[in-house]
Amino acid sequence: MLRQKLKPFIPILEWLPSYKRAQFSGDLLAGIIVAIVLIPQSMAYAMVAGLPPQVGLYASVLPLMLYSLFGSSRTMAVGPVGLMSLMTGSLLVEMGITDPDQLLSISALLALLSGLTLITMRLLKLGSVINFLSHPVISGFTSAAAILIMFSQLKHLLGIKMPSGLGLAEKIGFTLSNIDQINTVTLLVALFSILLLIIIRGPLTSRLPPSIGGILGKSAPLAVVIISILFAAIFQLSENYQLAIVGAIPAGLPNLAIPEIDLPLWEKILHGAILIAVVGFLESISVAKALASRRREKIDANQELLALGTANLGSAFSGGYPVAGGLGRSMINFSSGANTPLAGIITALLLGFALICLTPYLYYLPRAVLSAIIIVAVSGLIDFKTFKKAWQYDRSDAVSLLTTFFAVLIIGVELGILFGAIISVSLYLHRSSQPHIAIVGRIAGSEHFRNIDRHDVETHPHILALRIDENLYFANTNYLEDKIMEMIVDNSEIKELILICSAINFIDTSALDSLEVIIERLKNAGVTVHFAEVKGPVMDKLKKGNFLAHLGEGKIFLSTHDAFSVLE
Amino acid sequence: MLRQKLKPFIPILEWLPSYKRAQFSGDLLAGIIVAIVLIPQSMAYAMVAGLPPQVGLYASVLPLMLYSLFGSSRTMAVGPVGLMSLMTGSLLVEMGITDPDQLLSISALLALLSGLTLITMRLLKLGSVINFLSHPVISGFTSAAAILIMFSQLKHLLGIKMPSGLGLAEKIGFTLSNIDQINTVTLLVALFSILLLIIIRGPLTSRLPPSIGGILGKSAPLAVVIISILFAAIFQLSENYQLAIVGAIPAGLPNLAIPEIDLPLWEKILHGAILIAVVGFLESISVAKALASRRREKIDANQELLALGTANLGSAFSGGYPVAGGLGRSMINFSSGANTPLAGIITALLLGFALICLTPYLYYLPRAVLSAIIIVAVSGLIDFKTFKKAWQYDRSDAVSLLTTFFAVLIIGVELGILFGAIISVSLYLHRSSQPHIAIVGRIAGSEHFRNIDRHDVETHPHILALRIDENLYFANTNYLEDKIMEMIVDNSEIKELILICSAINFIDTSALDSLEVIIERLKNAGVTVHFAEVKGPVMDKLKKGNFLAHLGEGKIFLSTHDAFSVLE
Repeated sequence: MLRQKLKPFIPILEWLPSYKRAQFSGDLLAGIIVAIVLIPQSMAYAMVAGLPPQVGLYASVLPLMLYSLFGSSRTMAVGPVGLMSLMTGSLLVEMGITDPDQLLSISALLALLSGLTLITMRLLKLGSVINFLSHPVISGFTSAAAILIMFSQLKHLLGIKMPSGLGLAEKIGFTLSNIDQINTVTLLVALFSILLLIIIRGPLTSRLPPSIGGILGKSAPLAVVIISILFAAIFQLSENYQLAIVGAIPAGLPNLAIPEIDLPLWEKILHGAILIAVVGFLESISVAKALASRRREKIDANQELLALGTANLGSAFSGGYPVAGGLGRSMINFSSGANTPLAGIITALLLGFALICLTPYLYYLPRAVLSAIIIVAVSGLIDFKTFKKAWQYDRSDAVSLLTTFFAVLIIGVELGILFGAIISVSLYLHRSSQPHIAIVGRIAGSEHFRNIDRHDVETHPHILALRIDENLYFANTNYLEDKIMEMIVDNSEIKELILICSAINFIDTSALDSLEVIIERLKNAGVTVHFAEVKGPVMDKLKKGNFLAHLGEGKIFLSTHDAFSVLE
Repeated sequence: MLRQKLKPFIPILEWLPSYKRAQFSGDLLAGIIVAIVLIPQSMAYAMVAGLPPQVGLYASVLPLMLYSLFGSSRTMAVGPVGLMSLMTGSLLVEMGITDPDQLLSISALLALLSGLTLITMRLLKLGSVINFLSHPVISGFTSAAAILIMFSQLKHLLGIKMPSGLGLAEKIGFTLSNIDQINTVTLLVALFSILLLIIIRGPLTSRLPPSIGGILGKSAPLAVVIISILFAAIFQLSENYQLAIVGAIPAGLPNLAIPEIDLPLWEKILHGAILIAVVGFLESISVAKALASRRREKIDANQELLALGTANLGSAFSGGYPVAGGLGRSMINFSSGANTPLAGIITALLLGFALICLTPYLYYLPRAVLSAIIIVAVSGLIDFKTFKKAWQYDRSDAVSLLTTFFAVLIIGVELGILFGAIISVSLYLHRSSQPHIAIVGRIAGSEHFRNIDRHDVETHPHILALRIDENLYFANTNYLEDKIMEMIVDNSEIKELILICSAINFIDTSALDSLEVIIERLKNAGVTVHFAEVKGPVMDKLKKGNFLAHLGEGKIFLSTHDAFSVLE
């Protein structure tokens, strides 16, 4: 009984009992491949956030397990991702924190507060918050974030010391004026790694049969990691050429600990945590939806809030930092044949194993290699296609994409995304504030009425029939009043105005006021206002609002045809 | 030639040359009556802003003249108004300014920056900014502002000393805990004035013939001012009972001066000036529209930006503070028979005369009387009717009204109105994010299709015909995807889906993506997607966006009837 009640909230209760032996080989292979990708990647993302590499590994064990229990997506891989790392890092820099212990405690706290935010959003059923950003804005945001992430790796790629907290332009400026300090060996290691990653993924494996080629391609980061460790160790690149290496990583699983309760500090980082939570949710839900659509599974936005919230709490308690569902990693999981969240559990166990046994071998891993892995991973996020499409289809959407892109690059991730949301919304309001109003006439011999500009139709000198192609609400009431008055003033013959409401799905209180004003003004001008084709739900509301009393001699007709027949 | 070119920008070039002698008597009478109202009122409003009384008079001369030259409204009276005074006052308090000279220079600077803001908005043609606030939000905002203005007068009514910068609740608390300090004479003068204002306006003049009664009623403030000055002077109420009086007002017209250029200071108050400019524009344009509609005149929002901007510059250069079009005063102008802006010029000249000759007589004017005039003037702004209407017609509009009302009372005017705008917009987005989707069928024997829930219609087991009653845009793409997938998953018999687009006026790039995803997913499920009744402008855009290539076997039908005929 209890299990039945819990089922909707704990998806594992649904898929585990019906698990089939045939599903296991896919889950096992996918679990192993994702682990191979995730070990270097999670360390690299921790570096983006300015945290020690083991924090990335910690954030990949417990969160991944918890998501496997609660998530509604069967194949999404949760863990450290670029965007969360970038936002965490910029918040830590903004707060001016440099003490290593404090870095760890505050990044865990961010995960805790993000988790609590997501769970609160679940309780308030705020899954619909994803509706406030348009695709072009998300595209502009993601591309800009990818560029910011790449430039955050500049210092590791070149082996120069750069002060933290620099903007994009300042970073480039600093690099140019310190070009003589570039560490050649570091740069060579980085370039060689990037080249190798691209070659293994592309030309090398594309000629092999897809099954082997795919797996080999996905193991590219592992190959680069092993090769570079061997090189660095054999030639002692760190001691001889100042190549930065990962160094000693504490072995063993993270200690479970509850972050300290320090309310003034919590208040200080809460706004950042909320924004990280919302952006993480946004990223995860679009990844989950993209995967689910390929296998006709259903993603429940509110369930995802719960699952991601729990994953972030897990990250907080095990010394991690904010996590989300990553696109690249989830695609690898999916395409390697993952059938159920068991693949995620296998990945998490392997990462745990790596933490216990493999850390000594990572000592010589060059940081520049991790940067190279990041750069190759996020380069795929830079998206020209959406811009091209928006430019063709709708210029103003293209402009909002570009504006968001530059806003994120110039004023930063946090304000940039808020700015993007404001732009999406303003644009839509602006659009619907000047609705298309068509003068219609009858197609001779029929009951159909069409725009006089597009069709050859019959009109009547005393009757003006207008079809308003938009909901009536506060943003367009002024325009509507002005436009209708203009048309009437221009034509003194008109005695009857028919407002055709076939495209009006909603009339708000402001528009109701406006309609009353229009009726009143036109009455004084000797014109009677009629309505036609009012939809059921709109009519129900008009009746409630005592609007019909204002109509005077005006009538409400079922169809435009009826209205014309009576008024002619 | 030049005059012809300038005409659209300087309305006086239009009305003055065609001025008729018959219009003069109305303009003269209205000009005098408005001056009678404006002299005490403008001093009172200056008090709301925490400024000396003459500043209110200064703000009524040059601004009124300039508006008469540039304004597109023929009867609106511009000058100090409650809302501008409240916002100016709260900004001055926030900045902690107490030095009298600095108060004057910063309030003039606010007028300058507001004026520049309005003129910039004119250049950018941002007259449409008025479209971002719904009527219920404006109503909630205005009512709350009226209450704040009334409570700002509490100290003058009771004759107690109150520290500045208190919130509403703090003011009440302070008064209750200092109730023993109330100056009885001050309180009596205030109550007596309020009573007199109400009686003269109402019972006393309502029985007289409208022409005389109307003029007498409008002179009520003058009567109260004269009576109270006589009383205060004869009984020396100021010396004997500590009644606060206006005292010495510098005689003569204001000196023309250009505010100092102090960029750091400008930057500090710019956000306040912008908000004051927008709110002032909002108030003025609704007053102008209300008046214009009664005489079928046309108000041009962009011309009003220019006129109000110029009026505010005039106020800045002549020692005033931010001005706007006032509702009460403009109604008096209108109903006293003003025909052209000449009435405003006459009012301005009379105020200039008052400044030169009458200031000594105002010495004994009790401040409590000015407070009484304000309270009676703004009490009419508290608006229950809109709330009642919204509550009946649309609960969520009523909720946004209440929320704005309390937000303004609790967090203040500036943030309150931003909050209101955010609520209006979020509510609308939320509304359109879950569009009404109707399954339709054919009314037997006709070509008409209606909702199967509301009508008795024929359907076909292989065909699902959906009418989506909303524009498709980023806020509802998720809902649309989920809803359509749900309907198809629930019914495996369906092979053809017809999306009826008669109510869709707009499809943005996000929705275009979504439609492509839906078509792709349904193709895999063996369902073909067709479209019917796509509007001309929407079709034009779809063609541009290469959308038709994604349709596959799906077709676009002119009418739902055509679609059914072919697919059956």
